[in-house]
Amino acid sequence: MPGFDLSRRLAAEALGTALLVATVVGSGIMAESLTKDVALALLGNTIATGAMLVVLITTLGPISGAHFNPAVTLIFALKRDLTLHEASSYFAVQIIGGIAGTMVAHAMFALPLLDPSMKIRTGGAQWFAEGVAAFGLVAIILAGIRFERASVPWLVGLYITAAYWFTASTSFANPAVAIARSLTNTFSGIRPVDLPGFIAAELCGAVAGLMLMSWLLRASGDGPSINREAQL
Amino acid sequence: MPGFDLSRRLAAEALGTALLVATVVGSGIMAESLTKDVALALLGNTIATGAMLVVLITTLGPISGAHFNPAVTLIFALKRDLTLHEASSYFAVQIIGGIAGTMVAHAMFALPLLDPSMKIRTGGAQWFAEGVAAFGLVAIILAGIRFERASVPWLVGLYITAAYWFTASTSFANPAVAIARSLTNTFSGIRPVDLPGFIAAELCGAVAGLMLMSWLLRASGDGPSINREAQL
Amino acid sequence: MPGFDLSRRLAAEALGTALLVATVVGSGIMAESLTKDVALALLGNTIATGAMLVVLITTLGPISGAHFNPAVTLIFALKRDLTLHEASSYFAVQIIGGIAGTMVAHAMFALPLLDPSMKIRTGGAQWFAEGVAAFGLVAIILAGIRFERASVPWLVGLYITAAYWFTASTSFANPAVAIARSLTNTFSGIRPVDLPGFIAAELCGAVAGLMLMSWLLRASGDGPSINREAQL
Amino acid sequence: MPGFDLSRRLAAEALGTALLVATVVGSGIMAESLTKDVALALLGNTIATGAMLVVLITTLGPISGAHFNPAVTLIFALKRDLTLHEASSYFAVQIIGGIAGTMVAHAMFALPLLDPSMKIRTGGAQWFAEGVAAFGLVAIILAGIRFERASVPWLVGLYITAAYWFTASTSFANPAVAIARSLTNTFSGIRPVDLPGFIAAELCGAVAGLMLMSWLLRASGDGPSINREAQL
Repeated sequence: MPGFDLSRRLAAEALGTALLVATVVGSGIMAESLTKDVALALLGNTIATGAMLVVLITTLGPISGAHFNPAVTLIFALKRDLTLHEASSYFAVQIIGGIAGTMVAHAMFALPLLDPSMKIRTGGAQWFAEGVAAFGLVAIILAGIRFERASVPWLVGLYITAAYWFTASTSFANPAVAIARSLTNTFSGIRPVDLPGFIAAELCGAVAGLMLMSWLLRASGDGPSINREAQL
Repeated sequence: MPGFDLSRRLAAEALGTALLVATVVGSGIMAESLTKDVALALLGNTIATGAMLVVLITTLGPISGAHFNPAVTLIFALKRDLTLHEASSYFAVQIIGGIAGTMVAHAMFALPLLDPSMKIRTGGAQWFAEGVAAFGLVAIILAGIRFERASVPWLVGLYITAAYWFTASTSFANPAVAIARSLTNTFSGIRPVDLPGFIAAELCGAVAGLMLMSWLLRASGDGPSINREAQL
Repeated sequence: MPGFDLSRRLAAEALGTALLVATVVGSGIMAESLTKDVALALLGNTIATGAMLVVLITTLGPISGAHFNPAVTLIFALKRDLTLHEASSYFAVQIIGGIAGTMVAHAMFALPLLDPSMKIRTGGAQWFAEGVAAFGLVAIILAGIRFERASVPWLVGLYITAAYWFTASTSFANPAVAIARSLTNTFSGIRPVDLPGFIAAELCGAVAGLMLMSWLLRASGDGPSINREAQL
Repeated sequence: MPGFDLSRRLAAEALGTALLVATVVGSGIMAESLTKDVALALLGNTIATGAMLVVLITTLGPISGAHFNPAVTLIFALKRDLTLHEASSYFAVQIIGGIAGTMVAHAMFALPLLDPSMKIRTGGAQWFAEGVAAFGLVAIILAGIRFERASVPWLVGLYITAAYWFTASTSFANPAVAIARSLTNTFSGIRPVDLPGFIAAELCGAVAGLMLMSWLLRASGDGPSINREAQL
């Protein structure tokens, strides 16, 4: 795999985060405009987001790693796979790209480019849900990279597909996306004032995922080898 | 593939069963809260569960085999791929993990941590459906391992996606998940008193699947080789 | 790939067709019982059928070729990949397996085991739709085998997923499944009297698919090689 | 990979575009006839289209490249992967095939073979959405070919699945399909008078995608190699 310079890596992170947010926000607007059934709206939102994640991680992953998510970048920085300078550059372009994604979605639907959300998302249960969502995301990324790197785009897309439904917060699991979603007063929005709780929960969950997987993924070279037939 | 010691294998089984149950129960709560249309609720439940199964089996399979299901563990114990000690340890952590999964789902949705279900699921047709569900699950796992091991996560995820709809019982097909679902009085629940019938049916179906596939998968070394062109 | 004797191949065809029909009929019953919205019912029916096709073709294909469909078996017999004796045996077990599948679905939902359908499906437009459905099915199977054999289970599952929606007949595309569906008076049924028109259309469409692909898939050894970069 | 002569390549482009349009138009008619919920209708339309794209690109890509889209053919002509003669032949058969696809869909549903649409799709926001849709399509095709050619059928299918929901125009992203859709007065139609705006936007978006990716995909041979562990 050839290397890409930092400017292209940052462009890939910005582009990917922008398209991801445009998908999340845009499909929410579309769904909300077509139906009164909220489950159906969430289904349209889910399918678009899950599908786009597979596409973006497959196509931009070879350039930048396809984090699109400061919580994921933080984990790789803690593992010393990124320098502090790289990580902070990633953070910046992810946030900028995310906000641009909201603006693109709004422009496509002829809405004001930015419009702070009034949707309340707060409280202990929501924060716990966000922590679970980010914990699971980091856990499956780390295990996926370890065991089956080529499947990681699918693992992330499918995980978020599930997490939109099984977490009470619909699984933002991404501080840059959360910030971008605070600027849309539509289906996928979150009040700006609720951001700190969500972001803190996401970072805690991500670090917990890293800690557990650091232990769980360490094979015992001298332990008994698992019987292959018993593995699914 | 490096080996993992028993403590990590048991942790993987517990974690996987917990996340599976959290997905089944959590997505059921979410769906039920968003729509009055039961088919749509089942669709949200289905998509989340199927997607999560692919993720969990891909990422935890290399550690523990990703059974997450006492019926599956029983089959591998009968095939002598697991010792009795390993199998009984798997049973224990699957049940404990499953119950923890219900608690996590309830915590995310701000519900009492455990709440016995009042949903009636009993009678000959339901038991037959559970038997069919577990029969099919074991059959596709054994054939998948034989012919295309790398696809097993997808096969299981897709099979359960179908089985949520084509079996009258919505295909629990898993005693540990059934126990965990008896402790949630929400969409995916089952009355505790209905558990024995479901679990017995699941184990019978699983053993029937093992018996059929033990015969069906035995190639005749001296038989005529199938024409490759006629194979899909 | 080891060979399997004819008894196992026939068992695989019967089992696969039975599970396929149980899925089509069972998911139709489930969907119809949960919602009044016919599009939603078709969606549940679609997702279950498409998912099950991927599973059954992957797991039983290495044994019997996973036809589950007399129209497909006919094509392979015309291509001389199956003898007349093999093909007629396949026809018989596909029809028997299909009927058994209807009975299994009915038993799971506590309905009379067989119940002739009263759903009218007839007329030129329906027959044309069935012809298109079978034409496309055979075309994608033959091209898939030629170019990317390992993907054929996915190609068939995805094709039928699309064809449930884009053909006016919801794409039976399978005479054995059509016969089995004539014996259920539920969502997926077809009047027995309407069978001849459907089956004739399916066989005509299948043969048309074979004829077109026999020409289209013949590469010109001496023609100009297509530029690789222009290929998707 | 053997080469295919131009007549087969053109036949593949015509067949593929016809089946793609038949799927888009047919599934729209089916969905509209089954439900009053527009989001549900779009979901049926989406799933059929996305699934069919994976099937058609996998099976016809090795013959013609599976463009089915003048905007995509234009990009490959600009990259000099196709001659001007080849490209103009592709344009012609894509348009003819697309119109034939509308006629097939109408015949299956017993409608007049051609019927100009009265659905208004115009204005700056719609054009911007079409530009974004085509930009993204070209970007993911070019990056997919560069990094993971075998996944391109899935990438396109998943991208369009997402784009049906996140773009305000439901992502036609294809001039030949747009022309064909102007001839159906059903769910997926567009007024003939609105075609020029859509087609111009699509071509602009496609060229913008080519320009960005020409820069982004150029690896710096002498740049620092990205740390493999940080890549998803």
